[in-house]
Amino acid sequence: MILVVSLNPALDVTHRVDHADWAGVNRPAEVHVRPGGKGVNVATVLGALGAEVLLTGLAGGTAGNGLRAGLSARTVAADWVEISAETRRTFAVVDSGRGQTALFNEPGPRVRPDEYARFKGTFRAQLAGCTAVVLSGSMPPGLPASTYADLIRMAADAGVPTLLDASGEALILGAAAGPAIVKPNLAEMQAAATRDPAAPREHTTWSDRAGSWCCDPAAAAAKAADTLRGTGAAAVVVTLGSDGLLALTPEESWHARPSEVIGGNPTGAGDAAAAGLAHGLAAGTPWPDRAAHAAALGAAAVAAPIAGEIDLDHYQRALAGVQVGAARQPWH
Amino acid sequence: MILVVSLNPALDVTHRVDHADWAGVNRPAEVHVRPGGKGVNVATVLGALGAEVLLTGLAGGTAGNGLRAGLSARTVAADWVEISAETRRTFAVVDSGRGQTALFNEPGPRVRPDEYARFKGTFRAQLAGCTAVVLSGSMPPGLPASTYADLIRMAADAGVPTLLDASGEALILGAAAGPAIVKPNLAEMQAAATRDPAAPREHTTWSDRAGSWCCDPAAAAAKAADTLRGTGAAAVVVTLGSDGLLALTPEESWHARPSEVIGGNPTGAGDAAAAGLAHGLAAGTPWPDRAAHAAALGAAAVAAPIAGEIDLDHYQRALAGVQVGAARQPWH
Repeated sequence: MILVVSLNPALDVTHRVDHADWAGVNRPAEVHVRPGGKGVNVATVLGALGAEVLLTGLAGGTAGNGLRAGLSARTVAADWVEISAETRRTFAVVDSGRGQTALFNEPGPRVRPDEYARFKGTFRAQLAGCTAVVLSGSMPPGLPASTYADLIRMAADAGVPTLLDASGEALILGAAAGPAIVKPNLAEMQAAATRDPAAPREHTTWSDRAGSWCCDPAAAAAKAADTLRGTGAAAVVVTLGSDGLLALTPEESWHARPSEVIGGNPTGAGDAAAAGLAHGLAAGTPWPDRAAHAAALGAAAVAAPIAGEIDLDHYQRALAGVQVGAARQPWH
Repeated sequence: MILVVSLNPALDVTHRVDHADWAGVNRPAEVHVRPGGKGVNVATVLGALGAEVLLTGLAGGTAGNGLRAGLSARTVAADWVEISAETRRTFAVVDSGRGQTALFNEPGPRVRPDEYARFKGTFRAQLAGCTAVVLSGSMPPGLPASTYADLIRMAADAGVPTLLDASGEALILGAAAGPAIVKPNLAEMQAAATRDPAAPREHTTWSDRAGSWCCDPAAAAAKAADTLRGTGAAAVVVTLGSDGLLALTPEESWHARPSEVIGGNPTGAGDAAAAGLAHGLAAGTPWPDRAAHAAALGAAAVAAPIAGEIDLDHYQRALAGVQVGAARQPWH
């Protein structure tokens, strides 16, 4: 069983209006309410792949109940720890007349230390029988940036490999705790590369330690990924949008690239790729195959209209076209 | 006990942002979630007045659960009939930088005939021991415009007087069922005055039957109110904003006018006035007093920042200043 941890899930509400009146009363033509957040997307894609998956994390209040109801309708197995504060909502106004979307993201719930302690107890029990753990998404207020590192160490103690998809401090501290895979996207990798909490902020950053950067951001990210791997992560996978993904593994480095660029909605593509990597991690698939599946899932997710959903036909077609090669290593 | 019926309640979500980006990602500075809808406001004000009140109606899904939780926090007693569709949300984006508010009102849930039949059973049982019934707000999809008329007749059979606050067809059909009071606002009264479902639409409207109108809309509304009273309502009260209210009663007609115009949020002022009228109806208060209390509550509601809330000090001060006089009757 693959365990997916979502500490800050969301209830996504979408209103479609024709030409919104930003100073008046609107009656949306369509209303959609869906479970959201990166971990929820990863678990949904793993479910679509036929993997045995359990979603866990923190949920509270009315929006937390809506999240539970939505996942139950999707038949995604979930076991949340109840918190007293309200799960966040995201609210999207899709203005189809103007072709633009306004997104309103509520802050996450403030999690109390006793609630996190209760979650750790649940997580420890859930680790029994797990083949892999995915830790994905933002940290709610009240939890320190070291939370993922804490959970990665607990999983390691239970002999379960972890995949971490986070950003900022949580990514840097988490990578140092020794996960099997960290999977930032290019922007997260670049942001992390300029920070190093282990060093005095004013003196040293990773960019200093990695040497001067060339002007190619992908190459710079790859260099940073290599540095990040050096701090403790066994493998670093950087998703590169339509360019697929770069996997720096213990043996080799691979670049998996879809043959065809599919237009669509890139939200959730990174989560689909993370699902593919977790699936391969749990099954012990060799890296070139694992990278190919992940890149194909990312491409297929772009073709699906809703984040967290995947068209299996698209996935099979994309998989047939993915090219995997040893990555050039301009950073060495 | 006063029973307040809300067939189409709402969960009101408000996001305050500084300068909204209508084509990007916003992080609201404040998020508020509250029970909403006219019936909910009426019951909340009655509770603040110390009346014994029970709120009933139809609630479903996640938003329905949010409504229940919010009312329980407000200590408003409620007994909803569960429906399968989701209670509507309203979503307000208050742009404090631009000083404007965008409101997104979801359509109400589609109510099935068996769900309404179940509600009628509950309503019949709730009528025992009632001193008055308030029927307030819009009709959800699936329920005919004659629904309020149906409930008014059931209450009359049980010997319980009713107050109806509705608009359009539901107001016209409801008035004909013989409620003790109908309470439209000026706009609703004027809209209703141009329609008469009992007459062939293309030939006769109330405005025809009431004779030609003068150019004063308040006088025209008063004339229409008189006609509406003729169809079956014992009394018609038209709220007039800062001008207070006009009460056409079986004995006399009264104009209750606050001495002082309070600036603020007019949303919910009509509901506060309806609560005052229902309170007087249940207690059998003489009309001039009843009208004065209702006008004072309407004025105090304007001073409260949130619809459905009331400042009791404001109410007492407003009550001291309300002037009640026999209304001029330019329509006779």
